[in-house]
Amino acid sequence: MNVAVVGLGLIGGSMAIDLKKSGFASKLVGIDLEESHVQQALDLKIIDEAGSLESAVEACDLIILAVPVQHIVELLPKVLDQVSTQVVIDVGSTKQVIADLVRAHPNRQRYVATHPMAGTEFSGPQAAITGLFKNKVSIICDVEDCAIEAVKLVNDLYEHLDMPTMSMSAQDHDLHAAYVSHISHISSFALALTVLKKEKQQYNIFSLASGGFDSTVRLAKSSKEMWTPILNQNAKNVLSVLETYMGELDRFRKAIESGDLVTLDALITDANKIRKVL
Amino acid sequence: MNVAVVGLGLIGGSMAIDLKKSGFASKLVGIDLEESHVQQALDLKIIDEAGSLESAVEACDLIILAVPVQHIVELLPKVLDQVSTQVVIDVGSTKQVIADLVRAHPNRQRYVATHPMAGTEFSGPQAAITGLFKNKVSIICDVEDCAIEAVKLVNDLYEHLDMPTMSMSAQDHDLHAAYVSHISHISSFALALTVLKKEKQQYNIFSLASGGFDSTVRLAKSSKEMWTPILNQNAKNVLSVLETYMGELDRFRKAIESGDLVTLDALITDANKIRKVL
Repeated sequence: MNVAVVGLGLIGGSMAIDLKKSGFASKLVGIDLEESHVQQALDLKIIDEAGSLESAVEACDLIILAVPVQHIVELLPKVLDQVSTQVVIDVGSTKQVIADLVRAHPNRQRYVATHPMAGTEFSGPQAAITGLFKNKVSIICDVEDCAIEAVKLVNDLYEHLDMPTMSMSAQDHDLHAAYVSHISHISSFALALTVLKKEKQQYNIFSLASGGFDSTVRLAKSSKEMWTPILNQNAKNVLSVLETYMGELDRFRKAIESGDLVTLDALITDANKIRKVL
Repeated sequence: MNVAVVGLGLIGGSMAIDLKKSGFASKLVGIDLEESHVQQALDLKIIDEAGSLESAVEACDLIILAVPVQHIVELLPKVLDQVSTQVVIDVGSTKQVIADLVRAHPNRQRYVATHPMAGTEFSGPQAAITGLFKNKVSIICDVEDCAIEAVKLVNDLYEHLDMPTMSMSAQDHDLHAAYVSHISHISSFALALTVLKKEKQQYNIFSLASGGFDSTVRLAKSSKEMWTPILNQNAKNVLSVLETYMGELDRFRKAIESGDLVTLDALITDANKIRKVL
């Protein structure tokens, strides 16, 4: 099968590598606005050839949109205008805005909304690695709006990446993603800002980071190109979760301020219940 | 050298394992209030023999206090009352309260305040592992208050654990620790509480956790026995850092609420500077 990957960053690049390796893709065409990304992807043999978006959509059976979410919003309607028997998927971290956008498109059935829940804090074709998706979950949204064979193709794709799939509505996806991913990124960004603001002795930060900081702050390396549009598109859910989060922090603040060790014990005991699910 | 380890949890147990393995300790005596911990440490061959605190202090050259910080406050003065040529260290996560406590003790010079910056979210003798400390930094505080040979012994100890040491005042230690460790734990506890409160479909949490949540929430498994006293003893620094942290979160909240993508970009770009130090 001929596969086009639009956006040759961490996700698109890693997907290209393993779709080729697993035999799912016989030919891989890569598209990226940044010439240097295309060249790197060719040099690294992540893709077989480069192309224009239009010619790639024409020549391929499956088109994967792996660009930041604000660009999916721009590209998806154009690509859908052009498809007939092809299947188009996106792999973005928000789903509701995109679902609303193409709801009435005549080729809506050819599009499957997906979100493979995997990543690292790095970006670009050089960050692409094999095995990134293995045993992680991919969400498939609003399957009732898709052609049956399109959903089958997408399930087959994720099987080739060793990813179990879960089906839910775009609305549910965005709520869950706010809880398990988006708030973690804000928490981490804010932590980095806090430390960078007050702690001028970088030697100390660096040396003492094994005290837990390294783990919680890892996500703060994530790029604005990816995260500003995600937080913007999922603003409603993110703001609701952020309010709850700041409320919980305030309970810690009050307990520490008043030396209320009983409440601190209770808060930590409750937080420990996360052991059951993780 | 005969070494007594008081508190056979993750830190004390892991230290015992590698002090024996590296040849620093010829005999290791273990003390713990919990009988089951002592028995486990004997069964796991983490210690050579069990003993009472009093007899262990009498029989050993070095006494390591590896109990939660509120118990260090209870035990350290008693142990110092009893020592003559022995050296006593603690490995707790706060230093100022303990330093103030023994400032005027006649045997103050025999005590060296240390904080090996290593750990996991697990606890108890079964969590003890070899190599926990390797290439992590240990802080040694207020060396000017210690006998020279006591500091030498402690440097030798950390060299046997492959830990570089840094010297600073107890006051500086507690400020840095609030930034690089204590705030991370509060951030993580609050994140766990947020998700557990709102997200009732645990299957979703669990499956989607690769979206970043797993990394930021790892520390939320940490125990109240360890963390309530740390947050209490370092309340002043922790509250100051927490205030800054909540202020940074509020900047994100406002930018998301008003759809201010320029500010979001700027916040994330600033946060990304953490790449330079980590």
